[in-house]
Amino acid sequence: MIIIIKDKATDKQVNELMSWLQSFSVKTNLVTGVHSRIIGLIGDTTSIDVDAVNARDIVETVKRVQEPYKNANRRFHPDDTVIEVRGRKIGGGGLSVIAGPCSVETEEQLMATAIAVKEAGADFLRGGAFKPRTSPYAFQGLGKEGIDLLIQARRETGLPIVTEIMDLSDIDLFADVDIVQVGARNMQNFTLLKALGRSDKPVLLKRGLSATLQELLMSAEYIMSEGNSNVILCERGIRTYEPETRNTLDLSAVPLLRQKTHLPIVIDPSHATGINSLVEPMSLAAVTAGADALEIEVHIDPKNAWSDGAQSLTPEQFKASMRKIRALEKFVDSELK
Amino acid sequence: MIIIIKDKATDKQVNELMSWLQSFSVKTNLVTGVHSRIIGLIGDTTSIDVDAVNARDIVETVKRVQEPYKNANRRFHPDDTVIEVRGRKIGGGGLSVIAGPCSVETEEQLMATAIAVKEAGADFLRGGAFKPRTSPYAFQGLGKEGIDLLIQARRETGLPIVTEIMDLSDIDLFADVDIVQVGARNMQNFTLLKALGRSDKPVLLKRGLSATLQELLMSAEYIMSEGNSNVILCERGIRTYEPETRNTLDLSAVPLLRQKTHLPIVIDPSHATGINSLVEPMSLAAVTAGADALEIEVHIDPKNAWSDGAQSLTPEQFKASMRKIRALEKFVDSELK
Amino acid sequence: MIIIIKDKATDKQVNELMSWLQSFSVKTNLVTGVHSRIIGLIGDTTSIDVDAVNARDIVETVKRVQEPYKNANRRFHPDDTVIEVRGRKIGGGGLSVIAGPCSVETEEQLMATAIAVKEAGADFLRGGAFKPRTSPYAFQGLGKEGIDLLIQARRETGLPIVTEIMDLSDIDLFADVDIVQVGARNMQNFTLLKALGRSDKPVLLKRGLSATLQELLMSAEYIMSEGNSNVILCERGIRTYEPETRNTLDLSAVPLLRQKTHLPIVIDPSHATGINSLVEPMSLAAVTAGADALEIEVHIDPKNAWSDGAQSLTPEQFKASMRKIRALEKFVDSELK
Amino acid sequence: MIIIIKDKATDKQVNELMSWLQSFSVKTNLVTGVHSRIIGLIGDTTSIDVDAVNARDIVETVKRVQEPYKNANRRFHPDDTVIEVRGRKIGGGGLSVIAGPCSVETEEQLMATAIAVKEAGADFLRGGAFKPRTSPYAFQGLGKEGIDLLIQARRETGLPIVTEIMDLSDIDLFADVDIVQVGARNMQNFTLLKALGRSDKPVLLKRGLSATLQELLMSAEYIMSEGNSNVILCERGIRTYEPETRNTLDLSAVPLLRQKTHLPIVIDPSHATGINSLVEPMSLAAVTAGADALEIEVHIDPKNAWSDGAQSLTPEQFKASMRKIRALEKFVDSELK
Repeated sequence: MIIIIKDKATDKQVNELMSWLQSFSVKTNLVTGVHSRIIGLIGDTTSIDVDAVNARDIVETVKRVQEPYKNANRRFHPDDTVIEVRGRKIGGGGLSVIAGPCSVETEEQLMATAIAVKEAGADFLRGGAFKPRTSPYAFQGLGKEGIDLLIQARRETGLPIVTEIMDLSDIDLFADVDIVQVGARNMQNFTLLKALGRSDKPVLLKRGLSATLQELLMSAEYIMSEGNSNVILCERGIRTYEPETRNTLDLSAVPLLRQKTHLPIVIDPSHATGINSLVEPMSLAAVTAGADALEIEVHIDPKNAWSDGAQSLTPEQFKASMRKIRALEKFVDSELK
Repeated sequence: MIIIIKDKATDKQVNELMSWLQSFSVKTNLVTGVHSRIIGLIGDTTSIDVDAVNARDIVETVKRVQEPYKNANRRFHPDDTVIEVRGRKIGGGGLSVIAGPCSVETEEQLMATAIAVKEAGADFLRGGAFKPRTSPYAFQGLGKEGIDLLIQARRETGLPIVTEIMDLSDIDLFADVDIVQVGARNMQNFTLLKALGRSDKPVLLKRGLSATLQELLMSAEYIMSEGNSNVILCERGIRTYEPETRNTLDLSAVPLLRQKTHLPIVIDPSHATGINSLVEPMSLAAVTAGADALEIEVHIDPKNAWSDGAQSLTPEQFKASMRKIRALEKFVDSELK
Repeated sequence: MIIIIKDKATDKQVNELMSWLQSFSVKTNLVTGVHSRIIGLIGDTTSIDVDAVNARDIVETVKRVQEPYKNANRRFHPDDTVIEVRGRKIGGGGLSVIAGPCSVETEEQLMATAIAVKEAGADFLRGGAFKPRTSPYAFQGLGKEGIDLLIQARRETGLPIVTEIMDLSDIDLFADVDIVQVGARNMQNFTLLKALGRSDKPVLLKRGLSATLQELLMSAEYIMSEGNSNVILCERGIRTYEPETRNTLDLSAVPLLRQKTHLPIVIDPSHATGINSLVEPMSLAAVTAGADALEIEVHIDPKNAWSDGAQSLTPEQFKASMRKIRALEKFVDSELK
Repeated sequence: MIIIIKDKATDKQVNELMSWLQSFSVKTNLVTGVHSRIIGLIGDTTSIDVDAVNARDIVETVKRVQEPYKNANRRFHPDDTVIEVRGRKIGGGGLSVIAGPCSVETEEQLMATAIAVKEAGADFLRGGAFKPRTSPYAFQGLGKEGIDLLIQARRETGLPIVTEIMDLSDIDLFADVDIVQVGARNMQNFTLLKALGRSDKPVLLKRGLSATLQELLMSAEYIMSEGNSNVILCERGIRTYEPETRNTLDLSAVPLLRQKTHLPIVIDPSHATGINSLVEPMSLAAVTAGADALEIEVHIDPKNAWSDGAQSLTPEQFKASMRKIRALEKFVDSELK
């Protein structure tokens, strides 16, 4: 950590600041320039709050040299984390595909979709039982019944299931779910993150609509600091000024996160674009960029979907896309690595 | 609601779409142009999901004419909502000031701050007992003990208390809190919003970091649709590309929300700017723009604050600012209305 | 165009508005609902200014149904535009690679880079002679001397040259340049665009830092409406709140623009990311997403580059990336189309 | 300037870097920590390009301690700059109001508006002769004829005139204009800025749609480094994700720029909001926040304006707003300073 001191600070104030910093078991190094003095901290600064340093009135600015996350940091954990669920893997090479409807609507709808995505080569089944909707007047999900249907679909297809938790109070309902998804709106629901950290259930953590990559990693750190290292990161588009797409897919997040963390990285092209015809090209681009997994919305009848129909693929579209995705996966694996 | 139909749609498809729309008890009006056909819906369209309409493959685009919120809508509730707590009001004219530390740290810190802000003319005491922090290694708040200290401070000063809830599971601890704050990161924690809607406790709802004003109003609608109309809206800065300030204060939200809703509007200049020296000018600007209340962070010793010290006013600064704020309030009331 | 009328409007006002609209040679269709009236316009609305309609005090909102661009619109020009320069093509299938240094610095630097990128398989040579720099104290480019060096490099390698124009007054210096680049900061320098529209020189038009895709197309329309249809669009990253990358690459622009326009689409992964190690993965992703061309910065000695060194590839890196790019191009062409 | 070195760097590489840095006539100070080494630079670092330092492969990150602008920097020029034109002042206390139509349309329109804004108490007349419009099919301004009409209006009212230049090639037409405006889209048209810097004509420089405050100051520096210190800065709203307003007014720019620079600061509430009813409240808020001037669009017949009608005030509205603005100016001056 580098601390730049204001011109007007007295030596006494600078010494006081250095004493306080030393109380965190770090060494301090003072550099004196013409216009400014600088304190360099040496040692583990994770427990020092940048904001607290900034609040000192003799401090001009503060810059962290080390990342504020440890457990999620590739620097300290060079090997890729691999999440294994019922014999399926996410991370460590290879490409997993999570597919299914935005919402679980009916038994018929879910089973038909589950069978279709299985046949097309999906590895996991997704489906929302608890739905975060902007409007209280929109369909809010089937709740427990939705989870029961997902479990039934797993029984029929063998596909492990991924579904979103919206509140800590529902956590017991997720006991038999394979991967618990935390949605973009809950990325900084820290109470929920800590609770999930106290189990060993894999967590698929979606990036918030305006979260930085560092904030995403800090939210992963919340889960991991409680003991659960089974975290999967998901980029699903960020909010920008561009109105044509629902969100803007930040695909450079894949290689960038790959450098910073050992956790697996999923791309959700459905929410990122919000447009049916962009799902395939962005899925393929994500595979090329090195994503560990894709999460794709598929609905047997998108035009009658209860939510997110405009971005859902039909089973036929998904099948056609999967052929390309798997061919590209193979090519990337053999030729581009 | 206006629905624009794609060129290629057949008459049969258009008729099917109109039949489906009529099932929501609205009337449909078809306009046929050279390049496009348009369906206009007449009646209450609140229960029709724009996304579901958009998902229809013959639909080019959809535009809502009416706002999707009812309870929060000034069109249907022309009179200002006034929140009354222990003889203090927010809304309906006049200016309330909510002040206090970012976090409740110790009994001494809170009592000294509470007495200071009371003497300077604050109407409410704020203080965080549960703290949403980006890092799991940062101070997380005193929890229940913090709320107990706030209640004690209320006893000593008479100031009603405002404090943030982070999770539904803590709701019982807030039984004796006067105004429950929902933070920016939880603005779309819909389970929490619904639970707060089932009480009649006033809720101070902060705008999310990248939430549109319509999404803020829809989150208010979540609370109100469950029966609780005691909602206060708070603009606290939005996330933009500008790095100099912590967030960008969107002050035009005050007159704009005033037109759209009858709910009271609070400005939080502390979080919006993140910089001590900007709190006073932005407070004064907010009063001029017509805010119903200000929420200002005050700390007896900002440079040793456990959180947000850089933006906290000292009691002396707050007192000086309050003199200007009250003088301006009077001037605005008598000369600018 | 759909115009939604305010509740309070009188019939007389609505009739006046319709008369005014009819003066633009369009037909008007009035739909009367319970809460609102709607006017639908039938005919060519390109010459009607949405803002002018919005300014009418009885107008609630206006929505365009048709795009406001004609010449750039695929609807009216279904076939891909192909730009041909000295036997090299951009657009219409196949992948072109434009490579070279950010700035032309010296003869040695440019010639060595030009030969290196040619050998690695680049199709065009880029290099900046006029440099738009944030600081007046930074290197501003060699100007005319830089263009002369580019022409010399073309003579030696046969590669057509691409270089940026910063002001209309320099236009004569670009007479022998093959493709004139308009930078992001000049995307809405309309005087410059019109002047370029009066020649038939190919123009590589870069998306502004916060320009929407529609604004990019409207800037292309400025050039095309003057008679020059040789326009190439370039996505080079947009400004968002994320600090890790220089900009955020909006890769979904490729398939989206493909639907809306017949103009060729280039991706510039160097400026979009600003980070050397992200250039290859984003280049590959762009090829997969269907880009017509890539524009990549290459420098013989990035650590001593006079500008943009952090994002420039070395000739060795470029050569290695080109092997993958060409292999992927072939795969995409044979297997993913 | 602080430079953080990568772990893997050898001593030889670090020494080479320090030698290179010393060639810029600064002293270097090396601090060696456990995980990192840091170089602190002492002296004038304005001529050192951060990007060039960043490009060195042993550099982890670079942080500027000093601002990269000198002429615009309050640190070196503590006194407020005051622009004087024909006996009217902008800056240094007091509030100036620039008012007039978006575009000069006809003699009748301009004269009537000029007389109305003069009577209401405006200090300067604005009006666009060259109009930057998104669409080539929209009204592009009267050009020279518009400037002639402005000069005629100045003759009749005595109000100094402010009008926008779009291209360097028109500069001779602005010889008799009092203040030359550079629009948001041209804020980084560096060739134009340098040319304006070679005269002593006051320049009103508008912040770009997605420009940081530091970039705005660097653009001012472009003008000032050529010798013209008569620069006025204008905040006119930035582009964000919020769709309700045309732009988002960043009002905290006023006190922030006040700290960083001695140049006068103007707020343009018309373009910032794009909505007639928000112009007055944001004008008043800007006065309270300490703006030196306001730039407000006024049109005698907004609903028939050829551009920007939706945000233009009528003369009656402007007169009513001016009464409040002047009363508030007086109050702020006597009570809030």
